[in-house]
Amino acid sequence: MNNTATFDIDTLGKPKFKSPLQLSTVRGDSIFNFISENDRLVFDLSFEHYQKCIANQEAPLCLEKAGPRQNIFFEPPKTTAAIVTCGGLCPGINNVIRGVVMALHYFYGIKRTLGVPYGYEGLNPEFGHELIELNPDKVRDIHQFGGTFLGSSRGGQSVSTMVDTLVKNEVNILFAIGGDGTLKGVDAIGEEIKKRDANISVVGIPKTIDNDIDLIDKSFGFETAFDVASPILRDAHNEATGAYNGISIVKLMGRDSGFIAASASLAMPVVNFVLVPEMDFALEGENGFLEALRKRLQSKKHAVIVVAEGAGQHLLQQTDVVKDASGNVKHADIGVFLKEKIEEYFTDIPVTIKYIDPSYIVRSAPANSSDSVYCGRLAYHAVHGAMAGKTRFVVSKVNNRYVYIPISEVTKKRKKIDLESEFWFSVLQSSGQPFSLK
Amino acid sequence: MNNTATFDIDTLGKPKFKSPLQLSTVRGDSIFNFISENDRLVFDLSFEHYQKCIANQEAPLCLEKAGPRQNIFFEPPKTTAAIVTCGGLCPGINNVIRGVVMALHYFYGIKRTLGVPYGYEGLNPEFGHELIELNPDKVRDIHQFGGTFLGSSRGGQSVSTMVDTLVKNEVNILFAIGGDGTLKGVDAIGEEIKKRDANISVVGIPKTIDNDIDLIDKSFGFETAFDVASPILRDAHNEATGAYNGISIVKLMGRDSGFIAASASLAMPVVNFVLVPEMDFALEGENGFLEALRKRLQSKKHAVIVVAEGAGQHLLQQTDVVKDASGNVKHADIGVFLKEKIEEYFTDIPVTIKYIDPSYIVRSAPANSSDSVYCGRLAYHAVHGAMAGKTRFVVSKVNNRYVYIPISEVTKKRKKIDLESEFWFSVLQSSGQPFSLK
Amino acid sequence: MNNTATFDIDTLGKPKFKSPLQLSTVRGDSIFNFISENDRLVFDLSFEHYQKCIANQEAPLCLEKAGPRQNIFFEPPKTTAAIVTCGGLCPGINNVIRGVVMALHYFYGIKRTLGVPYGYEGLNPEFGHELIELNPDKVRDIHQFGGTFLGSSRGGQSVSTMVDTLVKNEVNILFAIGGDGTLKGVDAIGEEIKKRDANISVVGIPKTIDNDIDLIDKSFGFETAFDVASPILRDAHNEATGAYNGISIVKLMGRDSGFIAASASLAMPVVNFVLVPEMDFALEGENGFLEALRKRLQSKKHAVIVVAEGAGQHLLQQTDVVKDASGNVKHADIGVFLKEKIEEYFTDIPVTIKYIDPSYIVRSAPANSSDSVYCGRLAYHAVHGAMAGKTRFVVSKVNNRYVYIPISEVTKKRKKIDLESEFWFSVLQSSGQPFSLK
Amino acid sequence: MNNTATFDIDTLGKPKFKSPLQLSTVRGDSIFNFISENDRLVFDLSFEHYQKCIANQEAPLCLEKAGPRQNIFFEPPKTTAAIVTCGGLCPGINNVIRGVVMALHYFYGIKRTLGVPYGYEGLNPEFGHELIELNPDKVRDIHQFGGTFLGSSRGGQSVSTMVDTLVKNEVNILFAIGGDGTLKGVDAIGEEIKKRDANISVVGIPKTIDNDIDLIDKSFGFETAFDVASPILRDAHNEATGAYNGISIVKLMGRDSGFIAASASLAMPVVNFVLVPEMDFALEGENGFLEALRKRLQSKKHAVIVVAEGAGQHLLQQTDVVKDASGNVKHADIGVFLKEKIEEYFTDIPVTIKYIDPSYIVRSAPANSSDSVYCGRLAYHAVHGAMAGKTRFVVSKVNNRYVYIPISEVTKKRKKIDLESEFWFSVLQSSGQPFSLK
Repeated sequence: MNNTATFDIDTLGKPKFKSPLQLSTVRGDSIFNFISENDRLVFDLSFEHYQKCIANQEAPLCLEKAGPRQNIFFEPPKTTAAIVTCGGLCPGINNVIRGVVMALHYFYGIKRTLGVPYGYEGLNPEFGHELIELNPDKVRDIHQFGGTFLGSSRGGQSVSTMVDTLVKNEVNILFAIGGDGTLKGVDAIGEEIKKRDANISVVGIPKTIDNDIDLIDKSFGFETAFDVASPILRDAHNEATGAYNGISIVKLMGRDSGFIAASASLAMPVVNFVLVPEMDFALEGENGFLEALRKRLQSKKHAVIVVAEGAGQHLLQQTDVVKDASGNVKHADIGVFLKEKIEEYFTDIPVTIKYIDPSYIVRSAPANSSDSVYCGRLAYHAVHGAMAGKTRFVVSKVNNRYVYIPISEVTKKRKKIDLESEFWFSVLQSSGQPFSLK
Repeated sequence: MNNTATFDIDTLGKPKFKSPLQLSTVRGDSIFNFISENDRLVFDLSFEHYQKCIANQEAPLCLEKAGPRQNIFFEPPKTTAAIVTCGGLCPGINNVIRGVVMALHYFYGIKRTLGVPYGYEGLNPEFGHELIELNPDKVRDIHQFGGTFLGSSRGGQSVSTMVDTLVKNEVNILFAIGGDGTLKGVDAIGEEIKKRDANISVVGIPKTIDNDIDLIDKSFGFETAFDVASPILRDAHNEATGAYNGISIVKLMGRDSGFIAASASLAMPVVNFVLVPEMDFALEGENGFLEALRKRLQSKKHAVIVVAEGAGQHLLQQTDVVKDASGNVKHADIGVFLKEKIEEYFTDIPVTIKYIDPSYIVRSAPANSSDSVYCGRLAYHAVHGAMAGKTRFVVSKVNNRYVYIPISEVTKKRKKIDLESEFWFSVLQSSGQPFSLK
Repeated sequence: MNNTATFDIDTLGKPKFKSPLQLSTVRGDSIFNFISENDRLVFDLSFEHYQKCIANQEAPLCLEKAGPRQNIFFEPPKTTAAIVTCGGLCPGINNVIRGVVMALHYFYGIKRTLGVPYGYEGLNPEFGHELIELNPDKVRDIHQFGGTFLGSSRGGQSVSTMVDTLVKNEVNILFAIGGDGTLKGVDAIGEEIKKRDANISVVGIPKTIDNDIDLIDKSFGFETAFDVASPILRDAHNEATGAYNGISIVKLMGRDSGFIAASASLAMPVVNFVLVPEMDFALEGENGFLEALRKRLQSKKHAVIVVAEGAGQHLLQQTDVVKDASGNVKHADIGVFLKEKIEEYFTDIPVTIKYIDPSYIVRSAPANSSDSVYCGRLAYHAVHGAMAGKTRFVVSKVNNRYVYIPISEVTKKRKKIDLESEFWFSVLQSSGQPFSLK
Repeated sequence: MNNTATFDIDTLGKPKFKSPLQLSTVRGDSIFNFISENDRLVFDLSFEHYQKCIANQEAPLCLEKAGPRQNIFFEPPKTTAAIVTCGGLCPGINNVIRGVVMALHYFYGIKRTLGVPYGYEGLNPEFGHELIELNPDKVRDIHQFGGTFLGSSRGGQSVSTMVDTLVKNEVNILFAIGGDGTLKGVDAIGEEIKKRDANISVVGIPKTIDNDIDLIDKSFGFETAFDVASPILRDAHNEATGAYNGISIVKLMGRDSGFIAASASLAMPVVNFVLVPEMDFALEGENGFLEALRKRLQSKKHAVIVVAEGAGQHLLQQTDVVKDASGNVKHADIGVFLKEKIEEYFTDIPVTIKYIDPSYIVRSAPANSSDSVYCGRLAYHAVHGAMAGKTRFVVSKVNNRYVYIPISEVTKKRKKIDLESEFWFSVLQSSGQPFSLK
């Protein structure tokens, strides 16, 4: 058999310090054991894949188990860490910040942790934002609130400038909390650091409310997102049933992936149509969305539609309306577009349409309990990996286990709903929506 | 002294049946006493008014105390009641429906209660909606949900047609749950009934999420409205602080009156500007809103703005933008208008603006506990008054007591925030907003 | 006519400084007016009382309107305030603390405000608790959490010692947040101050989760209390219906007054029995509680019982069980006692009993929106009154208006549910409980 | 290599009917594929296990993938299903009932589904409970509420009697929602059915709020349980900090396994001690719990303790107190016991102890969104498996995939917290509790 193929994590070098954690290396003493570099987990757990590997005499693709290592790379008293939060809000950011600060301080005795204000802007001196000293007292209660304690910004900054700032501030570890763009950014920072041969570890903690980071089970904040969204679907149902032929349209997050729309609809089964970016659908035609909506109204006198913000972009581009507009801002909103199309279409029967866009209400919510637990443990594992000198990795959960994965592997493409999956099938089953709306 | 001046309630005639309620007429037996028609409450409780009445030898304006009467007008086994809910959703409608059905059934033994579907439309046979038989089992759990169990519609129908429907269905009492227009409508129904000399009592239960019914302490659902809205202001604050010079604009209900915007801002003191319909304000100029916003950003780097939907209409009408638009739909939304104006104004400094419109989320929420209690008691009192043969009245709370008031008195004008009141002053104190933005 | 009889508030002396508030004294300028000492409000608003006053040529009892005065007693730059919170937790304490600190700082420019830790203990040097400097930054977010930022304790301390501490720390105003005992305590402090001719104003802000302070409309935190309690009644209903002859007993706060039990039961109409301290009831006998419960089980197969902690104390004292126990601790709990009695009684039919005591969950909740508004405005009015040199008063709402009342008047007796009131009648109507259980 | 070792599911016979589901068998058509009996998933995903299997030429242990089969065993128009819910309440039961009814009705066209009232009692005619006809209308809204729509009971009934009832009512499929005992019970029913050669499929849907069913990722309702419990820990923290040396003790569910206590403590990191059944701890002694508590109080002046109901049973048995008591009822409650022990121990310093037992509040809550999704999908999979003729299996999630497992495999032992796991380590890290309290 060949050697284990694996998503190997890059390291800054051989860990040469003893971990200050008082852990064990043997089973049976009721004390948690250090994780060994040999602790690997099979990625694809289908028996079919297993058989193929055997047949081909290949080792299966394996993932590195997350957790504290017996030897660490950074000498705690001389180590400075920094945390940056980028992109839009997502429930749980503050929990992750808190967890990282606590783990650095209490587990490893790191005395200097810096908060980078307003995302990558905070690593560019031109913006004049000042780095913030963090400590347990400052972050003790921040998990109770949504948002980000550090502030955020969208978009990137010069990689070279950002590395300069890290070097100038003697930062040894950078924790970047953000989505696809942020992770690519921090990977580029890691690459630049490597070129400069600087001993700085960069760690990504995937934050995407859309749950669209590839390979991983789920991103933090996602469960809270549909937990906050689903009662709003009940509200939409109340509005729809409150009028004759009442129609409620709820636009939820999801630029490329419709996980929030789909999950919220499963959680609050009052939804009749779930339109996601992954699906192709037609408005008109016998099997199109509008006729399906008509049938629903005929039988039940009300309908609830959930649409992901990235759904139906092909329809928006077709319309004349968009071409006329300056900067096509007006009709980029699929929710508003659907509302108008439905109004135009139902001239023969009275309809009352309510449009609800709860986007910021969902984004800025505090983490629910499940996400709080998840965020805390992600933070701890991020710290363990960084202290061991690993770099350019994300920490996440795969097959329900905490693992480290190279950033480059999770940013190759975005995770999308597989329309042939049992997940999407359950959405169709729950809503009564046909397999195809074309 | 002259006779008691009072808001006398119209009656259908002398109550000639004994109430089936087993109540008392004396104090000290631990059993609630029937309310006498002489139980009146002074409306204006300032000592100044009292002195004026004395000086002028006038009786003070008095209100009729709500509650069960010893003699009733309708003979329960022969009585049919109907309930109609009109206008937009508001928390607590289902609690009122439930309370009315329960009180009719259990307290008075009324066996036939009809639900009118989809508002006044349901009283117009042209729409083909059928009346629904209501009973305790059907309504037992409806208070757990927002919306209206009966459906609603906006606007009126022919008064004559609606009275025809009532007569045809042998309805003796009509309970109308709705706002200013609905109350005027049911009063007109009452007038038509009087002309026809029909023995039908009409009762209004003021429902206005804006809290803009005159004379009364508060309308049901209003407290829930700002209870649901205020955490959204916290969300807005999270969004605002999450970006450098982050600005959140939250549009809340309030066409003519800014009570929800003001109360929510008091409840969640993270709001810096509260713009209500009652106030005149300028965008530009040294003391205008935009410069005040600039000062706020300069000192704190973020701002939260709450705007009632009816605020700043004078600004919308001034703008060229509206004149250009077809049907002035685009800029009728003060929230969107403000967002655009702020974006245009701050060209010299970076700002990030988030716009949140939680309208339907607030309207469709279930009643909180305080409103649940209020709705139940309003419903009971509405039933007591109607059974006593009173008509064309609303039931509400004035000076913290349940009273009956003629519909015509509460629909003369809408209640608005008095800008010279302690209430508005407390909003300014809490937000730090200057007395004037002109 | 005689002079206005009124609950006059004691003052430290003539206010000799101009208020820093930029208010008005005329109507029509859209700026709030200072409150004049002549602004009085009639207490009893029954027309009957009005007529009696006329007949007897007496002025009606009047209350002093709360609000800012044009002239103030304390010179802001030289003024020190202190805040103390006593007794059990209640939703909204932190909102009041926050409101007082904000009003002192921003409205009047008071630079020194002290927090007294752990209730009256904090004014007794023996305990060694140190006074805390408060400022807007420290209290900005505390309203988001239940509990008290300052800590609390039960019971009193030597009045003389406490006044010594106030004098030693140059405190000019003491705000005491607490219930009946606390208010009596701060009144005694005020009396001692008067004896010493010290210029220290003492102000009470009534805090009683039981809502048992006399004369006032409601105490802060009370609405939140039954707002938090009422979903627990739904839980109890779920437990009761989840078993054959399922019985849930929920014990709620209310030592002398059953307002929380009664209001929560009105808010969540799944309750079949509401037992409060004000009512006398028997366990046994044809009309007693246990037979009434049997009838309920026979017809519906489940029952929900809400009992205030102070209810049925007469039963506890009768029982042999208590006499046998060492220190009668075991059976002082009416909830546990009822559970045992029901178990003993129903030997002929199977019953499943669940006992729920959510006391601390209710007490430690953060204020809901209505209470947040109330707390903030109470705090502002407390500061206005104190700055005007008033002393030994509470601020509260009567007849839906903010007023000042002498502490001595609200501590004469506790407010209780009037069993002959419409409020209690509505509880009986809602629950179906008979007027008498004896 | 040997044949696949697998947890094979028992079947009633060869599925001979075509599924009415319009699914696919090929990838690429955007339609979900039927699951094949060959779709198996590796259970142990450590690479170490993989290597061992290779070395030993053994197939790894595999699980059967859940989902709809192309051929089914039961002919829908002739099929009757029944649902029974047993044991204590747990969030999500109603969601599962709803999902099963909906899937039977809409996916497979089953026209007759019976609800068994009050658990296994409902299958014993002696109790006289009548089976309930279920349909989509009856269950449409039940997921909004906690509890069980069908009622429940604890304990078992004669297997033979229960099978008689199933046979008499022509039940073809029995869905049993319950914990360890219930699952063993339904397995015994399945065994008896086999003996009788009856064609009745029995399916278990594991319901254990304690999350103590072996092998599976998590049981439904568990996430909601700690989501409901964790804000109560915040309340406990408020109570603890509200008094000098304030100590709050919260008792949470967990007879044999401390997952709720541990997870809630991770979710709300205000907890200082987490005592679970899996750990051994001493009260007294230098390293015992009480001295650790003393250190905590000395440094922070407050402490929050979470104790699982099954923790510290070894201590209860030691005490004299229990021996004296009649029926050892008094001290079986570890929470009350701890409270008393702490009171006894701290005679030298003042402490204030608050004891909170939110058990029923947690159990009777409605499912949160994550659990709602989970419950719905479990229900669907349960129906798919049963329709395919599988029997004596549970449906659950393992390694984040839906699978079927023989009931006998998951009831061999209870799942417990591994004290050497990263999960427990994260609890210790988060709380600051030492590895050992002995």
